[in-house]
This record gives sequence, structure tokens and C-alpha cells, in this order.
Amino acid sequence: MVHNGIEYADMQLICEAYALLGALPALTAPEMAAVFVEWNRGELASYLVDITAHILARTDETTGRPLVEMILDTAEQKGTGKWTSQVALDLGVPAPTIAQAVFARMLSAAKAERVAASNVLAGPARPFTEDRAAFVERVRRALLVSKVCAYAQGFQLLREADRAHGWGLRFGAIAGGWRAGCIIRSALLEPLRAAFAQQPELPNLLLAPHFTRIVAESQQALREVVAAAALHGVAVPAFMSALAYLDGYRSAVLPANLLQAQRDYFGAHTYRRTDQPGSFHTRWTD
Amino acid sequence: MVHNGIEYADMQLICEAYALLGALPALTAPEMAAVFVEWNRGELASYLVDITAHILARTDETTGRPLVEMILDTAEQKGTGKWTSQVALDLGVPAPTIAQAVFARMLSAAKAERVAASNVLAGPARPFTEDRAAFVERVRRALLVSKVCAYAQGFQLLREADRAHGWGLRFGAIAGGWRAGCIIRSALLEPLRAAFAQQPELPNLLLAPHFTRIVAESQQALREVVAAAALHGVAVPAFMSALAYLDGYRSAVLPANLLQAQRDYFGAHTYRRTDQPGSFHTRWTD
Repeated sequence: MVHNGIEYADMQLICEAYALLGALPALTAPEMAAVFVEWNRGELASYLVDITAHILARTDETTGRPLVEMILDTAEQKGTGKWTSQVALDLGVPAPTIAQAVFARMLSAAKAERVAASNVLAGPARPFTEDRAAFVERVRRALLVSKVCAYAQGFQLLREADRAHGWGLRFGAIAGGWRAGCIIRSALLEPLRAAFAQQPELPNLLLAPHFTRIVAESQQALREVVAAAALHGVAVPAFMSALAYLDGYRSAVLPANLLQAQRDYFGAHTYRRTDQPGSFHTRWTD
Repeated sequence: MVHNGIEYADMQLICEAYALLGALPALTAPEMAAVFVEWNRGELASYLVDITAHILARTDETTGRPLVEMILDTAEQKGTGKWTSQVALDLGVPAPTIAQAVFARMLSAAKAERVAASNVLAGPARPFTEDRAAFVERVRRALLVSKVCAYAQGFQLLREADRAHGWGLRFGAIAGGWRAGCIIRSALLEPLRAAFAQQPELPNLLLAPHFTRIVAESQQALREVVAAAALHGVAVPAFMSALAYLDGYRSAVLPANLLQAQRDYFGAHTYRRTDQPGSFHTRWTD
């Protein structure tokens, strides 16, 4: 199930990269096919990037146009991504990128509603003036970091399920098993396997040196891609959720202190303090 | 349940506004209290904004510091937001902002992990150079648009539940009921009630003229706030998910055509075409 949840995120992230390359530097499908061929030679090497290159290169026999452009943009699903998201919610594990991938499929399915809304809700009209090659490289890096964040979420879910059920999962062996024969097989899984083999109690994939390095090298690209998508009006829910996850996870302090104060204010739910143990309640009103 | 799911989103969005105002223009708690007092006089007038102003103004008797800063940033929950998210997933309704609010609470709860991660994962060090007052106004508008997106999701969930169960819900009456005595009571609920009263079959709140206008006037602010958060490293999962929802919903074309091609490639799940009815399968490999 978690394999498939990660697969949902992987696929959605690739689709968002495709949307960005088409909407901003306006690459054609054959140009994008060449980009994915190139990406498949590096850190992103994977079955899904490989088949994406093949798909983008395919010509429709009936129309002579790229086949991908003749396919209706309404995603279907069999439920494993949904199930992963629901279990993550039950176990209290943040899996936002997986859940966003599931919601993105649902939103895509509402085609008639979207077409109607597109006539009512105008977006920004902002010209794209960046260097094309530099932007393509930023999207590559953004995809890489986001993919790492999605895997981090999947393995945190495995860890919590393992704790809850006492399964004795071996995370390195799981990652090792996914290196071949699986839809998510990729070059990333060997360093992922090695990270858990070296440190079975690794709290989060982002903290393994190999992946910390990827984040350090490429997070700026993800930030710039998210900013560009926001300003140009391209929907990238999975990229955005990956960045918010990264920034949330690396925040020693989050604004949940205010949230706890609100809960105490309206429901007397109490709060904890930073400077002393115990539960506290404030009489907020006279 | 949906009331509470919306409440989770409302609270998280306010917390993200608080995080942004503290991290970027570096407003103090008393300064933020004044901002929330001001916001409570306009379109954002609501119980939650009102109590936030009171909370931010409160001084801790023990330390003499703002009480909110003495509260531990680990959010708790009773499960209604989680339940809303899980039901949305079951009914196929995109409710990303509600789900992100739930995941944000979960991530906040992992305090020890976050503190450890903050020493390993460095973020950007980018000086904030924008005009303070202009930024505060952008955050206000971003909060307003994001709140509308969260309500749109909640009411789409009600609509789908109504269809699934044949309840005969009256959405205008529900919004009307929430105008008083509820935690999410706000000035926004009267135009919301009126929108559904005028058009009971309204497909999405974003398409009601009053709310289309809010989106048109303030979406640029949300875009700029999301871009700033991304570039400065402030985690705003709910703001980002609201923007991605808006941009996805108003997209006549989404990249799910590529996703359907991938599904057909690896699983022969078939796809539909834009130019003719029926289900199609391509033999992608020789």
C-alpha cells in the first residue's frame, strides 16, 4: 500500500513538472521527451521517468499530433493512494504529498466543472522571461527534492505502522525490494536502502547524509519553482506540499503555540509551556 | 464534522499568517494583536480572528513576555479534522486545505524530531526587504482568499455527501446556522448563505459572484505571499494548498492526461480521448 502511495506522489510530481515545462518555457511534447530522456540518465533515473519519455515521444496515428495531447485529463484511481492517506491520518503521520497527489486526481476528474470554472475565474497573465534551460534544470532539481520528501513521508508512515503493530519491519530491505520489478523502481532506492541499512532507527530520510545533501543542493530550485508556479498560476499541489513539508520538518518552532492558545480559549483544552512541565489553562476572558 | 474540518483550516491559516508576520516583517506579538484587531473590522471579521487578537495581546504573568510565546508549539486534536479529511477521500472530494491543516498539527506534534532536524537541514537566509504595511495587507488578502477556498472545499464535501446519502441538505441554511454560536462564525457566512440561497445548485463557492470577486481582487496577494514564504523558508502548507486548489479548479486542462498515459503504459488501465468517445489502450512497447 505504501509503495502505491509513493507511486501516486511520484506520478503527480512528474505531471506537475510536465505542466510547468509546457506552461512556462512552452516546451513541446517532443522537446519534453528529450528532457525526460536526459533526466533518466542522472539522479532521477527511474521507470516512471523512462516511460514518461516514451509517452511524450509518441505520435498519435489518427491525428499526427503527440498522443499525450489527445488523452483526456481525467485521472482515475483504484484506491491505494487514498488508503495510504487515510492510514497516515489514522496513525498521525504527515503524508501531505501523497494526499495531495490523491486530491489532484480527484480534482482532475471534475473536468466539466473545471472547464466551466475556467471561464469565470481568471488567473494571472504574466509573461515568462526566464532562461529556458535554467528553468528546466530548476524543475529537475525541484522534482528530485520533492520526490525525496514524498519518500520520507512514506517511510515515516512505515515506521509508525511498525510501531503501532509491532511488525519488525526492515526499512532497508523494503527499499531494497523496491529496486526491481516495481513501478517506483529508481536510482534513488539504492542510497535509500543504504541509509536505512546503516541507520535502522533513522527518524526521517531527510536526515540521512545522502539525502540531506540532495536537499541542501536543490532546495533553492524547489523554492524558485514553487514561487514561479504561484506567480504564473500553474497548479502544483504536490511540489508545494513537499516544500511545506520540508520547511515544517526543519522548523524548530512552528506556529502551533497560537493554535493551542486558540483551543484553550474556546474549549479549555489546556496547553503546555516551553519553560515548565504540566498542563495549563488561562482564563482568557473576564 | 464539516464545520470542524473548516475550523481546522481556519485556525491553521491564521497560524500561518502569524508565522509569516513574525518571520518576515518581524512584528511583535502586541503589534500583531493590533493587526488582528484591524482585520476583525473588515471582511475577515470572525470569532477566531477576534480571539487571536486577544491571545496575542496577553502578557504572561510569570515572565512578563507575550503569553503566546510561552506556549509549546505542539498542537493536539480530537479527530474531527482527520475524520473530515478521510471522508473527503472516500467521497472523492478534493479537500486539500482541510487535510493540510490536519497534517500540520501532526507535524507540529513531532517537536523533538523538528528540533533535531533544524540543526541538520538549513533553510535559505534571505533578507526581508519589502514594505511592512504592504506585506501585512498582502497576508490579510491571502488569508481571505485561502479561507474562501477552504469553505469551498467544505461545501463541496457537503454536496457530495448529500448526493451519496440523499439527505436533502440545504446549504444556505447550514451556512446560516453557522453565523452564530459556532467557532467558525464570521462575516463571510452571510454572503455564503446568500450565495447558496440564491443558487442552491451552485457547483462551487468560488463561482458565486461575491466570492469570485474576492478571488479576483485578492488572488495576486495570495500568489505573492506563497512565493515569499517559499523563498524565505516559512512553512505555509494551508496557504499553498489553497492556491493550488484555486489554480487546479480554474484549469480547463490539467496534466492528468500524462498520468492516464502512465497508467495505461504500466497497467493497461486504458484512457479516454479528447476527440472521440470510448476507452483506448495503446501498445506502448514493441
